[in-house]
Amino acid sequence: MSTIHNVAKLANVSVATVSRVLNNHPSVSPKTRLVVQNAIEQLGYQPNANAQALAIQNTDTIGVVVTDVTDAFFAILVKAVDKVAEQHRKTILIGIGYHQAEKEREAINTLLRKRCSCLVVHSKALSDEELISYLNKVKGMVIINRVIKGYENRCVSLDNQKGTYLATEMLIRCGHKRIAYIGSNHTISDETERKTGYLEALKTYAYPIVEHAITHNAPDFEGGEQAMIDLLSYNKDLTAVVAYNDSMAAGAISVLNENNIIVPNQFSIIGFDDMPIARYLIPKLTTVRYPIDLMATYAANLALSLVDETIDTPLAIQFNPTLVRRFSVESIN
Amino acid sequence: MSTIHNVAKLANVSVATVSRVLNNHPSVSPKTRLVVQNAIEQLGYQPNANAQALAIQNTDTIGVVVTDVTDAFFAILVKAVDKVAEQHRKTILIGIGYHQAEKEREAINTLLRKRCSCLVVHSKALSDEELISYLNKVKGMVIINRVIKGYENRCVSLDNQKGTYLATEMLIRCGHKRIAYIGSNHTISDETERKTGYLEALKTYAYPIVEHAITHNAPDFEGGEQAMIDLLSYNKDLTAVVAYNDSMAAGAISVLNENNIIVPNQFSIIGFDDMPIARYLIPKLTTVRYPIDLMATYAANLALSLVDETIDTPLAIQFNPTLVRRFSVESIN
Repeated sequence: MSTIHNVAKLANVSVATVSRVLNNHPSVSPKTRLVVQNAIEQLGYQPNANAQALAIQNTDTIGVVVTDVTDAFFAILVKAVDKVAEQHRKTILIGIGYHQAEKEREAINTLLRKRCSCLVVHSKALSDEELISYLNKVKGMVIINRVIKGYENRCVSLDNQKGTYLATEMLIRCGHKRIAYIGSNHTISDETERKTGYLEALKTYAYPIVEHAITHNAPDFEGGEQAMIDLLSYNKDLTAVVAYNDSMAAGAISVLNENNIIVPNQFSIIGFDDMPIARYLIPKLTTVRYPIDLMATYAANLALSLVDETIDTPLAIQFNPTLVRRFSVESIN
Repeated sequence: MSTIHNVAKLANVSVATVSRVLNNHPSVSPKTRLVVQNAIEQLGYQPNANAQALAIQNTDTIGVVVTDVTDAFFAILVKAVDKVAEQHRKTILIGIGYHQAEKEREAINTLLRKRCSCLVVHSKALSDEELISYLNKVKGMVIINRVIKGYENRCVSLDNQKGTYLATEMLIRCGHKRIAYIGSNHTISDETERKTGYLEALKTYAYPIVEHAITHNAPDFEGGEQAMIDLLSYNKDLTAVVAYNDSMAAGAISVLNENNIIVPNQFSIIGFDDMPIARYLIPKLTTVRYPIDLMATYAANLALSLVDETIDTPLAIQFNPTLVRRFSVESIN
């Protein structure tokens, strides 16, 4: 197996120069870089990332903790971080937390053991205290989709409450009198905030809160189906629903369709997130856009800037939920 | 910062024992393991994975190369590998290839530099020769969704041709006389094989091949929309379509719907892959199941068994495409 000494000899440079090329040090001329890379290629030399990492401490890996990659929301988050990593010639390491404290903790610890100095963490199950202890220890750690008091400048989040407020208000302005809410049965802040936005809008417009017009289920397609079945069983005068997310809205539309209730002519529905599925539904779903791609890009750049002084801190941004009007909402006369 | 010596002292064991606990060595008793883990916890000791990896060479990380995590197919693949990794108390490192040779190569090289001794690789852009040179060098590397001659026992794949043959045959048996094919415009083997399956079925049943009943586009929702528009522009007697994948089928259904052509009463369509979207469409999509979850699980177990003699080689399995009958196909009278 080739060593760094073989590479240096073939390229006719010092070992230190080869090392600088391997670590993308800016002081190496493009020409020297090319000569060294050719030598590396020719010898099939595999620099040992572990030895490299020990030497330089800042590894070339950004760690990302998400809940579940098969959820489009997190896949988009991961892809956005990967794009930023690529721009900086880094790679990403992914930990999966499945909304469980034990697994979220293990994911973060594994990434730290692997010396990821930058972390973008989506954690819902760990306590504020535990996350604060990590934030204090790891200066390149950024939290996404959650705000921790005192660490607001390292948290990237969205005003969920405003999102469902806008959605509910839109339905009210379209003349709907009985508007239901399909929520998630995960006890996470997103759910609390989104339900609060719905309730606030009802209050603002002096609408009554009807107990059985609020239901909770798993935040996926099947949960949306079940939630819609429950709503139809309990209520006979509903004409509109605000859904926790697009997948639940999709499940609800499927049930409405099977019951010959036509969306949007007889029933209006608004989703949340604006995932690709929103554009694939029939009718295409009116929803609240959660700009997770932009937020993850910002979070990754922020994390990098916290550990690398040569990278500018991105301008602090307030991300806003926005209504995306498609074809699942209609006015009532 | 705590060292391994502090941990050993607090736990009242040798440094070698702490090291064995960190490396999950089977010779440590559960009681000792607990004492050491408590000491690690108490001191907040972070073992340096890089130093650990240098010492033991076999790292605790399985590398996965996929094309794009925002494609459900690859997200399911990644999740399945992660589940296997979790069972073996390992983590995964993901490289993204975007169907480009340069990026696929870089992804594999990065994972190797990080000393991933097990790799599950989905590569479509690299040549057989290049992959063979990697396979010869990396004994824990397994290829998924591609067969390389001479390395069949380290390749996990599906008979794509059989899948579209079954789909086309189903439409023929339902009495459809003019059946179109919506293909992918990526020049990868999956497309060649799937189109061949369609053509073979037509040939078997002595159906003519109609030039403008075959069209290619991007293998996503928008590509499916455009492909269906093209088919409708060129043909007036079509009653059925075989689609390259479920996303394209979803786009096609959307266009049919906008043109008031009712699926399945007036038009039948079959997808491929059986991704979650197939169950969310209206009508729910009849499709060919690609068991990527099972295949990725098998591939990860195989990769582990190739580098770790204590892990049994999984029984060689021939994975088969199967028809999943839902509601997007109807007989013609």
